[in-house]
Amino acid sequence: MTDVTVYGVPQSTFVRTVRMTLEEKGVPYDLQLVQWSDPDYERIHPFRRMPAFRHGDVRLFESLAIAGYVDEVFAGPRLQPAEASSRALMRQWISAVCDYIVADVTRRYIVEYVLRPSGPDGTPDRAKIEEALVDIRHHLGVIDRALGESAYLAGGEVTLADLFLVPIMDYVSKMPEGDELLGAFPNLARWLAAMSDRASFIATIPPPFPGASAD
Amino acid sequence: MTDVTVYGVPQSTFVRTVRMTLEEKGVPYDLQLVQWSDPDYERIHPFRRMPAFRHGDVRLFESLAIAGYVDEVFAGPRLQPAEASSRALMRQWISAVCDYIVADVTRRYIVEYVLRPSGPDGTPDRAKIEEALVDIRHHLGVIDRALGESAYLAGGEVTLADLFLVPIMDYVSKMPEGDELLGAFPNLARWLAAMSDRASFIATIPPPFPGASAD
Repeated sequence: MTDVTVYGVPQSTFVRTVRMTLEEKGVPYDLQLVQWSDPDYERIHPFRRMPAFRHGDVRLFESLAIAGYVDEVFAGPRLQPAEASSRALMRQWISAVCDYIVADVTRRYIVEYVLRPSGPDGTPDRAKIEEALVDIRHHLGVIDRALGESAYLAGGEVTLADLFLVPIMDYVSKMPEGDELLGAFPNLARWLAAMSDRASFIATIPPPFPGASAD
Repeated sequence: MTDVTVYGVPQSTFVRTVRMTLEEKGVPYDLQLVQWSDPDYERIHPFRRMPAFRHGDVRLFESLAIAGYVDEVFAGPRLQPAEASSRALMRQWISAVCDYIVADVTRRYIVEYVLRPSGPDGTPDRAKIEEALVDIRHHLGVIDRALGESAYLAGGEVTLADLFLVPIMDYVSKMPEGDELLGAFPNLARWLAAMSDRASFIATIPPPFPGASAD
C-alpha cells in the first residue's frame, strides 16, 4: 500500500526522472498510466503533460517540483547538496537540461528517431537529424567539460541534476550516433556508465515506445 | 562597490526576474549589457542566453539557479517558503512559467508583437497572434484559478514564482489584447496590480526594445 502516485508513461524521460528520485529515496509508489484521450486528465495536470504526482492530499505537476518535494519530505539519501553554491549548480544543470537538452536532444533527435519520424515513408529525416547533431555536439560538450571537473553534475555525489539528465542520455546512447557521441565525450561516457549501474536506473528502464520498431 | 554582476539586457524577462530578486533582497549589483556578437560571451554562458551571474568566484547561468542562490546566500526577506509543499508549489509555478508561459506567451505573442514581427511589411502576423491567443487564454486561466486560492502563486507571501511570472505579465498588459485578457482574469489582474506596486518592479521597468516602435 502506498499513498504516492505518479501519472505518466514509463517511456517519458521526465516520468523516469521522478521515478528514479522515488527509487533513490526508497519510496513505494504506483505508476498510473495516463490516457491522453481522457478529458479528466486536465484536472490532474492543467497543461496535460507528464508526469503529475499525488502524495495523500498533495497534488503536484512539473518534475522540478515533484523531485524536490520527494527529496525533502521522505527519508533516505539527500539528493540536493547542503551547500548553497553546489545547490545552485544543481539547479543550473536541471534548468539547462530542461531548456537546451530537451529542446535539441529530446525533441529534435530522439523524437525524430523513435516517436515521430518526419522523413519519407515514416523514416527519420536525415537533414533534421544532421542539423540537430550540430547543437547536440555543442551541448554534450558543455556537459562533458562540467563532468571533467567533478564525478557528478553538482559535485562528488549524485543529485537531482543527474536524475534529470540520465534518462535522456540513456536514449542518446541507443541511437545510431550514440557510440560516436559517447566516444567523443569521455567524461560523459564515464558518468553514464556509473549512472547506469544504479538500482534506480535499472528499476526504471523504459519499455519500447508503442509502435516503435526495436533498435 | 559590489561583487555581484548580472549579464544581460533589461528588456529580457528572465534578466528582470533575477534583478527583481536582487532588489527584493536589497543586494547591490552591476548590470553588464551582453554583446551577443562578442565570442567571449560563451565563456560566461555556454548556451549564450541571458542572464548569467557572478558573485565573487561563484559563476552561474539559468535564472532558476541564480534566483535561488541569491535568496539563500544574502540577508533580507525569504523568497522561498519554509514548508515543503508550499516550496513545491513555488517550483511548480516557476517550471510552468518556464515551460508553457514562455513557450506560448513570450515566444509566440510578445516576441511577435515587439521583437520579430513576421507578417507583411514587418507587422505582426495576425493569424499567428490569434492562434497563440487560444493557448494564452488557457494558460492565463490556469494561473487565474490558482490565484483565486491564494494572494500569490505559492501562498500568502511573494515568492520567486511571482518574480518569474510578473515580467511576462507586465508585457502582456501592454499588448493590444492586454486589457481584454486581464479583464477576463480578475485574480490575475489583482495580482499584477499588487506586484506592480513593489519597489523591485518599479526599479526594473524595462526600456523599449531597441528599434521597436513605442506602444
